[in-house]
Amino acid sequence: MTDVLIAGIGQTQVGEHWDVSLRELALYAIESAVKDAGGLRPQALYVGNMLAPALSRQSHLATLIADFAGLTGIEAYTVEAAGASGGAALRAGYLAVLSGAVEVALVVGVEKITDQVGGGVESALSTATDADYEAEHGLTLTAQAALLMQRYLYEFKPPREAFGGFPITAHANGKGNANAMFRSTVKPESYARAGMVAAPLNMFDVAPNADGAAAVILTRPGLLTERLEHSPVRISGSSVVTDTLALHDRPDPLDFRAVRASVEQACRQAGIMPSDVDLFELYDAFSIYSALTLEGAGFAPRGQGWKMSENGGISLSGALPLTTFGGLKARGNPGGATGVYQIVESTLQLRGQAGANQVPDAKRALVQCLGGPASTVVTHVLEGVER
Amino acid sequence: MTDVLIAGIGQTQVGEHWDVSLRELALYAIESAVKDAGGLRPQALYVGNMLAPALSRQSHLATLIADFAGLTGIEAYTVEAAGASGGAALRAGYLAVLSGAVEVALVVGVEKITDQVGGGVESALSTATDADYEAEHGLTLTAQAALLMQRYLYEFKPPREAFGGFPITAHANGKGNANAMFRSTVKPESYARAGMVAAPLNMFDVAPNADGAAAVILTRPGLLTERLEHSPVRISGSSVVTDTLALHDRPDPLDFRAVRASVEQACRQAGIMPSDVDLFELYDAFSIYSALTLEGAGFAPRGQGWKMSENGGISLSGALPLTTFGGLKARGNPGGATGVYQIVESTLQLRGQAGANQVPDAKRALVQCLGGPASTVVTHVLEGVER
Repeated sequence: MTDVLIAGIGQTQVGEHWDVSLRELALYAIESAVKDAGGLRPQALYVGNMLAPALSRQSHLATLIADFAGLTGIEAYTVEAAGASGGAALRAGYLAVLSGAVEVALVVGVEKITDQVGGGVESALSTATDADYEAEHGLTLTAQAALLMQRYLYEFKPPREAFGGFPITAHANGKGNANAMFRSTVKPESYARAGMVAAPLNMFDVAPNADGAAAVILTRPGLLTERLEHSPVRISGSSVVTDTLALHDRPDPLDFRAVRASVEQACRQAGIMPSDVDLFELYDAFSIYSALTLEGAGFAPRGQGWKMSENGGISLSGALPLTTFGGLKARGNPGGATGVYQIVESTLQLRGQAGANQVPDAKRALVQCLGGPASTVVTHVLEGVER
Repeated sequence: MTDVLIAGIGQTQVGEHWDVSLRELALYAIESAVKDAGGLRPQALYVGNMLAPALSRQSHLATLIADFAGLTGIEAYTVEAAGASGGAALRAGYLAVLSGAVEVALVVGVEKITDQVGGGVESALSTATDADYEAEHGLTLTAQAALLMQRYLYEFKPPREAFGGFPITAHANGKGNANAMFRSTVKPESYARAGMVAAPLNMFDVAPNADGAAAVILTRPGLLTERLEHSPVRISGSSVVTDTLALHDRPDPLDFRAVRASVEQACRQAGIMPSDVDLFELYDAFSIYSALTLEGAGFAPRGQGWKMSENGGISLSGALPLTTFGGLKARGNPGGATGVYQIVESTLQLRGQAGANQVPDAKRALVQCLGGPASTVVTHVLEGVER
């Protein structure tokens, strides 16, 4: 098998882009990524997107974006796996380059939640749950996360403020990220006083929906251009694992078992242990997801994932830095684009280009996005490469 | 590169399945395909679907289907490229097996247009066009095909009944296909008298939207089970090519240039000329598409594609058999499932299991589906394999 390298990255600011269209968002990220890759021309485009058919009444999005970006003619299709769409699109690009059939692949994650010609966001996001057995009865992803958190509080009896460390750290990291939606500090007192979104989830336990686009260029080692001004990053592990779509079908809803399986698969392929990574870009759509992810991945015992956020353990200089550019909570959660943002940010870390957000001596990153409550889990291991 | 083989196929009847859910349709096709493949267990599922987010309010469909089919845990995501979704899902499965990362891939195309909780079908299908510059102004795929046909009639002056040969042949072939939506003969007089859908397109120029699911199992040569009761079929060429999404952006709307490029790519990879194929499963969503496809692919000169349907030229024993199980017109057009139906039917031809629909001595098939008016073109070359 050949190595698959990340040769270039691009991203737009995350936020509410009322004046920028879906296709323009994607274009900006693509232009940055192609430039960053030294002008490599992609032969194929894999787009991660979840909500355009519902919110913008636009399917066939990959072809639209290829066309609008001046790449008319190249291979293109859209990949969807709810919140994990961006990671799944990276997986599709990775497989295409690994196969040898595609030499240079462009992976774009894009979402425009401020397009709402086709309906509201919360309703559109609910299509990630089981339409017949969950959404039909009024369950949303947020309500579902609240149920998970309530069960966690009941079962393990952590203090109520246990989950505050995740958003507080995310916001601290968002401050140094010029592309983040929120760059403000959150204090423990603010977390304790925050209004409820769906009890016991408060405002800081829920990541904001946002617009944004991120892009990466993948290729093989022999095809890097001499104009490349930075080291590439290698994808050394790649895994997609699913669980039951409906939360009620699991023997233990507090066990994110697909997280465990996917981390194990990706790390085995990379020839490492999870503890060998220098940072973990996890999927903090809700702070309860962060705790359950750390437990599922084996970084913390059951019921104790929240403890890792104490005493700076997940900060940039901590034992396991998380959400190093603000995560979904502070950078923002642009749906199907999120998984590609995580890859872009991890690549900056491994190139040593993370500026104020640099994790010291970062050589290896674990990157993971989730569709629903870990119903789909996409995990990648990235490693810095010496040129 | 390894060979990628089709080890098993499955399909449901095409039609209006008011009493069967989206997930059940997929399950029936999967069960048939797994059995046909001698019980091979898939490690990954790639679902081709276009309309579930809009019509059934269900995204995250691949994970739902993996779960419902008893394959909980395997890799899964959905692939979307409008009407070409099924072909694009096959491409994803092909790349996964070709890469070596996946040993056994399941590709499912599924569509349930009788689910309409999220809106009407024609509106949902319009999301395949440019939302801002086409659909917004009321253009539907059907209206667009009518404009293409009108232009063709003006430019090349064929007789009005020129296009009748395509649906008449499709219906003749649908008679022998137990899974076809329509199994009735269409006579030239009926075509000439048919009511207009969008002038000059009449009722027989438009394929019917339908429910259905089809599945194929892909693997490498060394992994076939001894229980396999038939020869496998090899995917010897695979190509995805795009054009402008919006029809009005093309220098010549009557030139399906992405068809030409994709057929050339797929045939070059297979080491054949297009004229070497024994049948062509083309995308006859509208009879004008058939004419433009034959011209784009180089089988007929510009303006003369319709002539190929004269004198039995496209019948089962003709020079270039088309739509051998009824095509989109008579088998029915189950959206994102259609591309996988085409693969299933071609596989039956190459195994010599097509019964009354058998193309004599079929060794090689060209298979193609389109998203929009050849905005996305997915082409595969399949070849029979001796065991």
